Amino acid sequence: MAYQELQIEGRNAVIEAFRAGRPIDRLYVLDGCQDGPVSTIKREAKKHGTLMKYVDRERLDQLSGTGKHQGVIAVVAAYQYAEVEDILEAARKKGEPPFIFLLDNIEDPHNLGAIIRTANLAGAHGVIIPKNRAVGLTATVAKTSAGALNYTPVARVTNLANTIEDLKKEGLWFVCADMGGTVMYDLDLKGAIGLVIGNEGEGVGRLVREKCDMIASIPMKGDIDSLNASVAAGVLAYEIVRQRMSCEVSS
Amino acid sequence: MAYQELQIEGRNAVIEAFRAGRPIDRLYVLDGCQDGPVSTIKREAKKHGTLMKYVDRERLDQLSGTGKHQGVIAVVAAYQYAEVEDILEAARKKGEPPFIFLLDNIEDPHNLGAIIRTANLAGAHGVIIPKNRAVGLTATVAKTSAGALNYTPVARVTNLANTIEDLKKEGLWFVCADMGGTVMYDLDLKGAIGLVIGNEGEGVGRLVREKCDMIASIPMKGDIDSLNASVAAGVLAYEIVRQRMSCEVSS
Repeated sequence: MAYQELQIEGRNAVIEAFRAGRPIDRLYVLDGCQDGPVSTIKREAKKHGTLMKYVDRERLDQLSGTGKHQGVIAVVAAYQYAEVEDILEAARKKGEPPFIFLLDNIEDPHNLGAIIRTANLAGAHGVIIPKNRAVGLTATVAKTSAGALNYTPVARVTNLANTIEDLKKEGLWFVCADMGGTVMYDLDLKGAIGLVIGNEGEGVGRLVREKCDMIASIPMKGDIDSLNASVAAGVLAYEIVRQRMSCEVSS
Repeated sequence: MAYQELQIEGRNAVIEAFRAGRPIDRLYVLDGCQDGPVSTIKREAKKHGTLMKYVDRERLDQLSGTGKHQGVIAVVAAYQYAEVEDILEAARKKGEPPFIFLLDNIEDPHNLGAIIRTANLAGAHGVIIPKNRAVGLTATVAKTSAGALNYTPVARVTNLANTIEDLKKEGLWFVCADMGGTVMYDLDLKGAIGLVIGNEGEGVGRLVREKCDMIASIPMKGDIDSLNASVAAGVLAYEIVRQRMSCEVSS
């Protein structure tokens, strides 16, 4: 298992981390800060025996990776990347057909955070990202995931196309979002599925696209080219949710 | 027509702006500054009847977004706000029932940009934002809208609740995204519709919420509270697109 050094910044994110039982090594708190949320955080820190350090604003600004620490920065024994097998196991435990997000080189940490947040709420069992080029689980990702990183496993793989091949043997079908595909409402997106989201600028890479069983297009009724990557991921994920729910009703 | 404020800083940039015929609302000049370029700028300002304000260096530094004002900051009318009537007219021209986004105090310019981008691609006829508190059409919004600001009209209103009342007289129904509503797939979202999206932290305000005909909830199958505001807007907008498309097919 690989670990990555990581900071969690901002009040809600820090509270969520404590409550989710994340192992927090150190907590930096703005000296003199006494309001409700900060008191809650201090209480959680004491409960968990976390080392607390009171620092001034300048020091906190220096430490901050996001510039939006809201007076608290938690240094955690960072996010543990999961293995792909952990994700499949999560689906098995819930008795559900696997639903996995695969991100083909998302570069913007805000997009990655928002997509992990969406994956959690759409009921996906995990997220797979490639090791190279793409953004990893930075502090900004943690913050924009709004706590979802504490629940939704994220696995990193060397080669996304190979991982897709392996997962096909587990019975998953793969759909990617790209232009020139079939309108998503006309595809059968029920069952074990991998949703592939492409890079912000270039979309889904050729090799990965060729491995996909279906290419879904989101109806575009406007004048510009494409949705924001995290919005596109959300729209497609919820079409999958809709189709899965219609299954539940009819079964 | 109302105009949104944008600043142009630095001598050459300000001279260029005047010569290009940009409508400049106000000009801030460093008090006591008398050199050639500044005199040229003052002459241009007089010629165009621009309001001039002499301020000290501290004030100018405060106003400056770039830190490189060189003694002059021009406040120009940037993106032209539309009127609500323009949005209705756009729908009429297309022969479509109006589809309008109403944003109840979106604060993050990245979210506002992404939502305008979504509005364009979902085929909405325009976006309405409130004048106070919310972010306006800044440079970051323009950039994250990926060009959509050039096509999708954005209107600013003083009171969103009153605007909803007025639009009801035009036959629009209003749906807002909030917890505790009806699952969106079970609502009838066809026809003339206003989609209300709440603030990132607080959701939809009480007064606005009370004006809505329907409260839609997005199925939440995860552990955290809510989707990113621009993702939620996208998911709901595309449920409206899906229902509208099923109409087209059946008619």
